[in-house]
Amino acid sequence: MKNTFGNAVKVTLFGESHGDAIGAVIDGLTPGIEIDYEFIDRQLNRRRSKTQVCTQRVEKDDYRIISGVFDGHTTGTPLCIVIPNRDTKSSDYQLFSSVARPGHADYTANCKYHGYQDYRGGGHFSGRITVALVAAGAIIQSALEKKGVYVGTHIKKCADVCDRDFENYVEDIKSLHVAQFSILDENSKEKMLSKTTEIKANGDSVGGIMQTAIYGVPAGLGEPWFDSLESMLSHAMFSIPAVKGVEFGIGFGCANMKGSEMNDEFYVSGENILTKSNNNGGINGGISNGMPIVFNCAVKPTSSIPRKQKTVNFIDKYDTEIEISGRHDSTIIPRACVVAETLSAIVIADLLIGRYGTDYLL
Amino acid sequence: MKNTFGNAVKVTLFGESHGDAIGAVIDGLTPGIEIDYEFIDRQLNRRRSKTQVCTQRVEKDDYRIISGVFDGHTTGTPLCIVIPNRDTKSSDYQLFSSVARPGHADYTANCKYHGYQDYRGGGHFSGRITVALVAAGAIIQSALEKKGVYVGTHIKKCADVCDRDFENYVEDIKSLHVAQFSILDENSKEKMLSKTTEIKANGDSVGGIMQTAIYGVPAGLGEPWFDSLESMLSHAMFSIPAVKGVEFGIGFGCANMKGSEMNDEFYVSGENILTKSNNNGGINGGISNGMPIVFNCAVKPTSSIPRKQKTVNFIDKYDTEIEISGRHDSTIIPRACVVAETLSAIVIADLLIGRYGTDYLL
Amino acid sequence: MKNTFGNAVKVTLFGESHGDAIGAVIDGLTPGIEIDYEFIDRQLNRRRSKTQVCTQRVEKDDYRIISGVFDGHTTGTPLCIVIPNRDTKSSDYQLFSSVARPGHADYTANCKYHGYQDYRGGGHFSGRITVALVAAGAIIQSALEKKGVYVGTHIKKCADVCDRDFENYVEDIKSLHVAQFSILDENSKEKMLSKTTEIKANGDSVGGIMQTAIYGVPAGLGEPWFDSLESMLSHAMFSIPAVKGVEFGIGFGCANMKGSEMNDEFYVSGENILTKSNNNGGINGGISNGMPIVFNCAVKPTSSIPRKQKTVNFIDKYDTEIEISGRHDSTIIPRACVVAETLSAIVIADLLIGRYGTDYLL
Amino acid sequence: MKNTFGNAVKVTLFGESHGDAIGAVIDGLTPGIEIDYEFIDRQLNRRRSKTQVCTQRVEKDDYRIISGVFDGHTTGTPLCIVIPNRDTKSSDYQLFSSVARPGHADYTANCKYHGYQDYRGGGHFSGRITVALVAAGAIIQSALEKKGVYVGTHIKKCADVCDRDFENYVEDIKSLHVAQFSILDENSKEKMLSKTTEIKANGDSVGGIMQTAIYGVPAGLGEPWFDSLESMLSHAMFSIPAVKGVEFGIGFGCANMKGSEMNDEFYVSGENILTKSNNNGGINGGISNGMPIVFNCAVKPTSSIPRKQKTVNFIDKYDTEIEISGRHDSTIIPRACVVAETLSAIVIADLLIGRYGTDYLL
Repeated sequence: MKNTFGNAVKVTLFGESHGDAIGAVIDGLTPGIEIDYEFIDRQLNRRRSKTQVCTQRVEKDDYRIISGVFDGHTTGTPLCIVIPNRDTKSSDYQLFSSVARPGHADYTANCKYHGYQDYRGGGHFSGRITVALVAAGAIIQSALEKKGVYVGTHIKKCADVCDRDFENYVEDIKSLHVAQFSILDENSKEKMLSKTTEIKANGDSVGGIMQTAIYGVPAGLGEPWFDSLESMLSHAMFSIPAVKGVEFGIGFGCANMKGSEMNDEFYVSGENILTKSNNNGGINGGISNGMPIVFNCAVKPTSSIPRKQKTVNFIDKYDTEIEISGRHDSTIIPRACVVAETLSAIVIADLLIGRYGTDYLL
Repeated sequence: MKNTFGNAVKVTLFGESHGDAIGAVIDGLTPGIEIDYEFIDRQLNRRRSKTQVCTQRVEKDDYRIISGVFDGHTTGTPLCIVIPNRDTKSSDYQLFSSVARPGHADYTANCKYHGYQDYRGGGHFSGRITVALVAAGAIIQSALEKKGVYVGTHIKKCADVCDRDFENYVEDIKSLHVAQFSILDENSKEKMLSKTTEIKANGDSVGGIMQTAIYGVPAGLGEPWFDSLESMLSHAMFSIPAVKGVEFGIGFGCANMKGSEMNDEFYVSGENILTKSNNNGGINGGISNGMPIVFNCAVKPTSSIPRKQKTVNFIDKYDTEIEISGRHDSTIIPRACVVAETLSAIVIADLLIGRYGTDYLL
Repeated sequence: MKNTFGNAVKVTLFGESHGDAIGAVIDGLTPGIEIDYEFIDRQLNRRRSKTQVCTQRVEKDDYRIISGVFDGHTTGTPLCIVIPNRDTKSSDYQLFSSVARPGHADYTANCKYHGYQDYRGGGHFSGRITVALVAAGAIIQSALEKKGVYVGTHIKKCADVCDRDFENYVEDIKSLHVAQFSILDENSKEKMLSKTTEIKANGDSVGGIMQTAIYGVPAGLGEPWFDSLESMLSHAMFSIPAVKGVEFGIGFGCANMKGSEMNDEFYVSGENILTKSNNNGGINGGISNGMPIVFNCAVKPTSSIPRKQKTVNFIDKYDTEIEISGRHDSTIIPRACVVAETLSAIVIADLLIGRYGTDYLL
Repeated sequence: MKNTFGNAVKVTLFGESHGDAIGAVIDGLTPGIEIDYEFIDRQLNRRRSKTQVCTQRVEKDDYRIISGVFDGHTTGTPLCIVIPNRDTKSSDYQLFSSVARPGHADYTANCKYHGYQDYRGGGHFSGRITVALVAAGAIIQSALEKKGVYVGTHIKKCADVCDRDFENYVEDIKSLHVAQFSILDENSKEKMLSKTTEIKANGDSVGGIMQTAIYGVPAGLGEPWFDSLESMLSHAMFSIPAVKGVEFGIGFGCANMKGSEMNDEFYVSGENILTKSNNNGGINGGISNGMPIVFNCAVKPTSSIPRKQKTVNFIDKYDTEIEISGRHDSTIIPRACVVAETLSAIVIADLLIGRYGTDYLL
């Protein structure tokens, strides 16, 4: 399916960082969803992440919904969002058509596209492509909230500083939506920013872990084989540039646990069936069990660092060095959080509409 | 796509643990692949994993290829493998149609299938379904090896005992194919088995980590968005019952690293472009870079443990207790390794045939 | 998608005419559908079509549902039906691995599968593959009828003899289900059979037209682009060996009409909106309008005729002649009707479940 | 798949007639295809069809390729073409949100989209959406021609006037590409135009048949089940508004033929295997046989006619009348031909790239 993802709801991404425009098409949406422009703006703002640790390429993200919306509501036909590119400095990038930046896709893109790739600013690999995704996903997120489904992602860990875990899911997620920086504990925020800034000052970058919670998903979503809830979510997450690991619930921690510790015991609470612990992250046998769906993504440190690194000229095949200048985040986690949140909302909407029908989000 | 996975090569799974038969259909295979029956037998043997830590339900796995093979070669039309179920003790399971085993899919299956699911032996959720998958995958694996692509999975860690890492990929993978227990270091094997047996004796089970290496994949495989190599592989891995985490290369370790440590520097070696380290697990920007593709999967401890656990009757909604008897693995890692290996081979074949055309494996 | 078709409901076909078995997997079915074994038997019986015009290879079609059914109801997991092959005379066919029967796929199969195709009895191209399809589809058809959706196909024309058109849809369709020969007007039947028998006696075969009606489909099913109702139905119909044309409503007749004649005027009838004529076959803009969906399929005369025909040896590339002996239908329309009916039911179930959710057929 | 079509090559359509813009995304294209802007312009020009029989809404179709092209070549990443809407008279259409134009999708769209559809100018159902398709397809068509594959569609019949059949395929197709009106016999053109104009003057419209030929496709393309060449092509064709029938080769004519007449006898011609007749339209068993692929599409008369017609108000459910004014084609065949040609090229490219790999069109 390549640049298209989903079954009942399908997202297609297009665009290159320094091309004319980037954009997304979402097909399969329920007709009649009210467009929450404020929510879109907030999410784009979060993604833009105007902090000292993120790149100075700040575009206003003047998105235009060019189809699929009429009189402020989705029509049910493909919704296309386009965002023009403006503030581009293409001269920075010419070198990367032959010299590979370590950690980047310059070399692999050349192997795949035989030199025809748009190498400027990462081209189609650029994180900028996610602007359209975030805008489109915001429409879905606000529709999901009306059905009681909340999706939020925070920085669980960055530069060795940890955020607190989710406590009150709905409140915490709502607080993330209005925050400029995706963190739950304000105290951690300052520490995280200052440590990251310090690392940046040293000409380096840093990785971290982001944590997503999806609250309010009814039990019974997902498939036993292939399209397990974990499969669908991880498929989406591993599209985010820099994600190198995905784990659900206790995740890799389960490797050191015994069955008696890992198993989440059920109990009845009024009309509901709940589990005491949530080591399985709300998923049993690939299917939601009604508990919050919780998962972590490992984000690698930004590959672009303002230091001399050893590399190759892959066209003429010789060893060389590279020093990357230009505007770069010292960590992309603040932005990646919004993308993870967005993609999670899209996956959940896809599964809900697949299960309950086209009109589910009305 | 539910129980079907892949694009150019598609696998469909069917069957319930205590039904008539389980099976798989593989479509999109190159015509003319010679069926390596010995390889199939070896893989089925490995999956059956006759050790003291695995279940005593030992079936001979009398698979039958009922379509898609003619004169010992694939025809290019859908290949269906069917494995009849024989040694079933269904009476063990009736309880689970209303009382949920913690960690299992009894409750979620009921939410999804409204009580119509075949609850006997895990039904369609049973790991037994993977027998057909392994048989089908073995056909692909031996075809891949003829093209220089080797896929192997070993137990990296179990019951706190670690195996050594891959060293010589081709040799190590070949040794795994002929081993009964998927481990690289014979010394670790004994420790692992004895510790696992001990835990079993205590009425408990244990998790671990499996590691897969794919050697010989040409650079340029995978997509920048959605169908990244990581996305495709993790989608497949999270279908394996009990996998709760997937990480590529250094994986979650990257969360604590700096860019200068994480980036894999390139160098020229003869005609090839290689990287010194392989923290990215052979994948840059979602696309293979020619280095071995390496990833880990976290496997949770077997949910079935012979102990009293708190749970609910989800039909009549009351708290209760359950004690699971019957035949169960104290860890499923030995079997899961073969499934991970199989699925990896299928994903790689899918991408290779998608890229190079239908006849690639000839 | 190759041998798999559908979105919410997916059918996969496998098998070769003279292999071990043929079969089908249906995924995405609503759990809890009661299996109507009598309906299955009737449909298989109709497909077998024991008349003087159809082949003498009469197998009892001992189908086995090997997964996806438990206690007489669908489980919601993939339903696999397998039908073993028994009465095979493979020696008849060896010649066709190098000499092409005109009108058949011997040569094209060789181009596609490079000689590895199972050439016996048409292999994977054989109409016999549809036995599994018909059995699986019968399960869907009886479930649809409970929702008021009726699907029936009759022989509109064969050997220059015409059947009458549908009049009372529900009654007519029910009468087809219990008939051995898919025709509405008993008088036409005798004429058709005798003319076809006559043509057979002359060592020839004959084509015709089959007409399908789908009654009771709610308005609003289908998509404006690509997955129009016509697109989905024609996609399925052109899978039937020998179908060379598909037309909806007045079909090719519209080429000679004026807009004022073609347009179906709407009127209100109680709570319903109907059209006076049904030239558009129940579909406007690719979407059902609530009127009966009606379409015709042109079926070419059976390619196998007991006469000398000019052809080639495609391996050694020389001109030659062929005379086909063996058991063959003088027309496949009686069988093809049941397959058209089946596939129509599957397409409609796919669209209904896609629109109204997984549980629609409960 | 809804508004997305194809497997190896995928097209997604978006836009509404009177919205901001319409467009298409094509994914899966070979990188390095040179963009033939002249070919695109010619095809858009043909589609615009400035004749007296086509609508006076003439937009310049100022398309913009906003992604997937770099330095005049495809990059291999999704190519998005956007065409802004300008010359729109929305006030014409408000009525159709409640009163159905006979033959149009006003009523069915309302059933599907619950009143949220953009009813102006046909919205997402408008033939205008095909502008982007034609532009995108033109890129593929010129790439196919470099591989010796030619695709052309002409008006076989309109207003009872017939065009001649294809004779020299390559020459005929080339002549269509440069013609303003898609016809092979210049004499027929004048007759066709004058008869159509006459019908228009009478306040009516007229249907016809378009014929497509695909020349140079290698034998072996297509699948035995579900994705037969006929299935894929008809699926695409029935997306074209107004197509009500599709037939391959002799098509519905086969219903009256005997096997001895219908079968195309093979013969050897040098290195090639050909057939004397081409009743099967270049396809045996769903797979190309190397002969030209030929098929016809029935196009219904334009539904919009400037006459009083009986209809309903579907919101308030009462009988009423409608008289449609505004700009309308008296026949859409001249435009539809270019769309049929385009879609055929896309289907063939999809199958060729699926079979021979991503780089096939390089």
